[in-house]
Amino acid sequence: MDFVLLFNRYAERHGDAAWPRQRMLHECLRAAIREGTLAAGTRLAASRALAEELGVARNTVLYAYEQLSGEGYVVSDRRGTMVATLTAPATTAHAPKGRAAAARDPGLGAAPPGLSQRVRNLRALPGDADRMGAFVPGVPALEHFPMALWRRMLERALRGMTALQLNYGDPAGEAPLREAIAGHLRASRGVLCGAGQVFITDGTQSSLDLCMRALADAGETIWIENPGYGGALAAARAAGLVVAGIDVDDDGMAPRREDWLLRPPKLIYTTPSHQYPVGSVLSLRRRHALIEAARAAGALIIEDDYDSEFRHDGAPLHAMQGLTPDAPVVYLGTFSKTMFPSLRIGFVVVPAALAGDFALMRAQSSARGRVAEQLALAEFLRSGQFVLHLRRMRRLYRQRRDALVAALEKHLGSVATVHGGSAGMHLSLRFNDARIDDVEVTAQAERHGIAVNALSQHDTQGDSGWKGLMLGYAQVPAERMEGLVKQLAALIHLAAYAANRSIKTPYQHARRTSGRSRR
Amino acid sequence: MDFVLLFNRYAERHGDAAWPRQRMLHECLRAAIREGTLAAGTRLAASRALAEELGVARNTVLYAYEQLSGEGYVVSDRRGTMVATLTAPATTAHAPKGRAAAARDPGLGAAPPGLSQRVRNLRALPGDADRMGAFVPGVPALEHFPMALWRRMLERALRGMTALQLNYGDPAGEAPLREAIAGHLRASRGVLCGAGQVFITDGTQSSLDLCMRALADAGETIWIENPGYGGALAAARAAGLVVAGIDVDDDGMAPRREDWLLRPPKLIYTTPSHQYPVGSVLSLRRRHALIEAARAAGALIIEDDYDSEFRHDGAPLHAMQGLTPDAPVVYLGTFSKTMFPSLRIGFVVVPAALAGDFALMRAQSSARGRVAEQLALAEFLRSGQFVLHLRRMRRLYRQRRDALVAALEKHLGSVATVHGGSAGMHLSLRFNDARIDDVEVTAQAERHGIAVNALSQHDTQGDSGWKGLMLGYAQVPAERMEGLVKQLAALIHLAAYAANRSIKTPYQHARRTSGRSRR
Repeated sequence: MDFVLLFNRYAERHGDAAWPRQRMLHECLRAAIREGTLAAGTRLAASRALAEELGVARNTVLYAYEQLSGEGYVVSDRRGTMVATLTAPATTAHAPKGRAAAARDPGLGAAPPGLSQRVRNLRALPGDADRMGAFVPGVPALEHFPMALWRRMLERALRGMTALQLNYGDPAGEAPLREAIAGHLRASRGVLCGAGQVFITDGTQSSLDLCMRALADAGETIWIENPGYGGALAAARAAGLVVAGIDVDDDGMAPRREDWLLRPPKLIYTTPSHQYPVGSVLSLRRRHALIEAARAAGALIIEDDYDSEFRHDGAPLHAMQGLTPDAPVVYLGTFSKTMFPSLRIGFVVVPAALAGDFALMRAQSSARGRVAEQLALAEFLRSGQFVLHLRRMRRLYRQRRDALVAALEKHLGSVATVHGGSAGMHLSLRFNDARIDDVEVTAQAERHGIAVNALSQHDTQGDSGWKGLMLGYAQVPAERMEGLVKQLAALIHLAAYAANRSIKTPYQHARRTSGRSRR
Repeated sequence: MDFVLLFNRYAERHGDAAWPRQRMLHECLRAAIREGTLAAGTRLAASRALAEELGVARNTVLYAYEQLSGEGYVVSDRRGTMVATLTAPATTAHAPKGRAAAARDPGLGAAPPGLSQRVRNLRALPGDADRMGAFVPGVPALEHFPMALWRRMLERALRGMTALQLNYGDPAGEAPLREAIAGHLRASRGVLCGAGQVFITDGTQSSLDLCMRALADAGETIWIENPGYGGALAAARAAGLVVAGIDVDDDGMAPRREDWLLRPPKLIYTTPSHQYPVGSVLSLRRRHALIEAARAAGALIIEDDYDSEFRHDGAPLHAMQGLTPDAPVVYLGTFSKTMFPSLRIGFVVVPAALAGDFALMRAQSSARGRVAEQLALAEFLRSGQFVLHLRRMRRLYRQRRDALVAALEKHLGSVATVHGGSAGMHLSLRFNDARIDDVEVTAQAERHGIAVNALSQHDTQGDSGWKGLMLGYAQVPAERMEGLVKQLAALIHLAAYAANRSIKTPYQHARRTSGRSRR
């Protein structure tokens, strides 16, 4: 083996690395051993001779050899340095082959094993809020967020950080933030809780994930509204729960007698303040009924109160959590809508009787930290800036909703009905003729640069009977509504005409055979 | 019903709320309805009459009644306003009772259903890094972190934030950070990857959680080192995996032939650079063997490289991920040790063949955002400040390790052996006599204000044969080592004497009957 040639070739190929000579030699020999150019048992050149041939100090060569030895690539004996044997021991011959054969990609050698089945289950869902523009739901009016104010509070919190606060934080969240949230929820949402029941998370998806794993075991049943929130469906599937879709009407989730009998739930996921996606508000009567029935069935309600701070008509209904003492309710909230999504702070309020268990569990399993963000947010709440910001946004969103509703009624009143606009940041437009293909309308709108969600894409089990569009209006200026809705209306009227004449486009034909509502 | 009396009593009790009259009336009536003071069917006083009696405008009363009506607490007919019926409908009578009966707390009415079994499985593990001080492992020298510099970079990133960046971010992480991490890993850890293979997480616990759910299904087997990392064990249990503990010796994880035959793994969790907790470095020969055997078995290796940047003796071994092309390895890294824990940024490097699937999966399920932190960290890496900080910390930690090793050998050389100090932020002290009760020593030390971890508390399956202490030294000044070790030595010598004389304390007797190692 001509080590000088080997080295010079390697140095030529890696000249841009600008390594010192000893590093270059080390890398060169290691690469040659890995690639098999230097086979096990090959003797390396004597250090003194190689140093002379390469025109480097002997220490340079010795250092490289030492490195290789430390890494196990070479072994030394009395006669010098030799390439070590690196092949796997005989045990591997006994490893089972079945899965390996299945995982192999015939083109590229061995492909790694793939994703688990439970994660593959997620792939059928539509993505949502990574887009912006009309009418993507769930995205607040970000350009109206008081960023300079928030930055000042965050910078103040950063400046106050002690070395101790750089460490792992309280897994339940920072105490001042838990206090501030509990105070706000008591005053504005009628939630009955102490700070010890509040647990900080990275947002609603984390909260859902946490609740579905902590409060139910694989194989247990969860009720999810139908149509319903895809993120809840994803979390439920990832947790191995059995999903039962429960119909939604104008008064929100409407479980039937046979649902309680035939599919008794362990968990009930619901969005009572503003149903996702259709926007219904769960009636008070249904709230009481659901609480009592859940209590009797030993089930827990997960109340996702994601955008309830924006109530446009009349005073908001209080949260289910505070409706009766000791309601079997876990309450979820988020600052993604009230502050901004990339803040990534949400929370879970658990029943007092579960708070101790929850704290223990979080201590074992959760991410802990982000102290400055939490303290800044606590200050934002305590200072009254949060309520001020909410008030401004409420006014803005109401204007935008009014403009959207007016435009929808003007241009689409004959073929569709507006639902669920009394709260939140989105409403739904239900097609009067359920044969209108809402997915096709969505695809057409996308081509015109308008992002809408088809209600039927939110079906969580079978056909929910809701055909139409989900329209997020929080980030759309009022003066743009008329123009956007006009464009949308043209597409919908065309689709209505097609549905009425039973003219199926090839796309529709391939996708589904029946678009009929069961209502 | 005397509504005036009812109101006055309520107003007296809630005088500090400083509500306007109409809100006070609304709250008063709602509370009375909820509590049953105003039963279903009760007629409310006529608005005009009540307004006169209370001395308020009639609109005030009408407003309160409207609110109650909107919430469903009252209904109106031609004769006036009446309390609505709020009890649950008959359907609830059919709900199954079994679980409810079990969940009820006889003292307090109905207690909510409790935690899932899979979460209860977590509770046996010891908590770790929420403490500070000698010798808590995993906590860096936080007072040496260049906080002012980091704050400046973060503030610059915050100032550059656009409204768009307040929105949900890329679920895989911000591109500049993924690029910077890939570049750093290639240069310093020999990891072969492009930025598209790097996924940003909230830290190692999130990474573990993600990997164990995304790469294996419930009921599949994961190998975890024994003794091993409790966080990995917790994630595996939460994911419903079957855990097989694999013995660890001075050369790291040592699977036997029968492990491959009898407990073939889907996932293999290992800490090759610095075994957690004992500190062994997985030998190169074993690395190759593990990779080849995993490939043959269709298993994926999860390489947790949590503190490998701190190599004290010689050059670090490259990561397993880059040892051979297309190694079946998922590589985990974290900035909790190299920056600070509460930053909450870690990452997963997946095989190129899995990157597309992983990106799709993350788009469905992950928290997205924290853009400013990610961009600031990218800048910290790109600017060279990260490597500079690592170099300073490496020097500091090496001094501290040297002082600790010297003190341990001086005061405990006769009864224990130092292991695994060549890298990272902790080492292990193995008792020569495996009958010494390391948990008892830990408890005694705690009483003296010294936090140590017993190696046997890290057993992941049965008795690992490792008895001794895990000592984190990164945050302990070199000059304090001698004094602390002296204190510790007194306790250990006492325990060794007790073990030798077979004098069992009552505590030991109750806790376990045999302390014998199987080695």
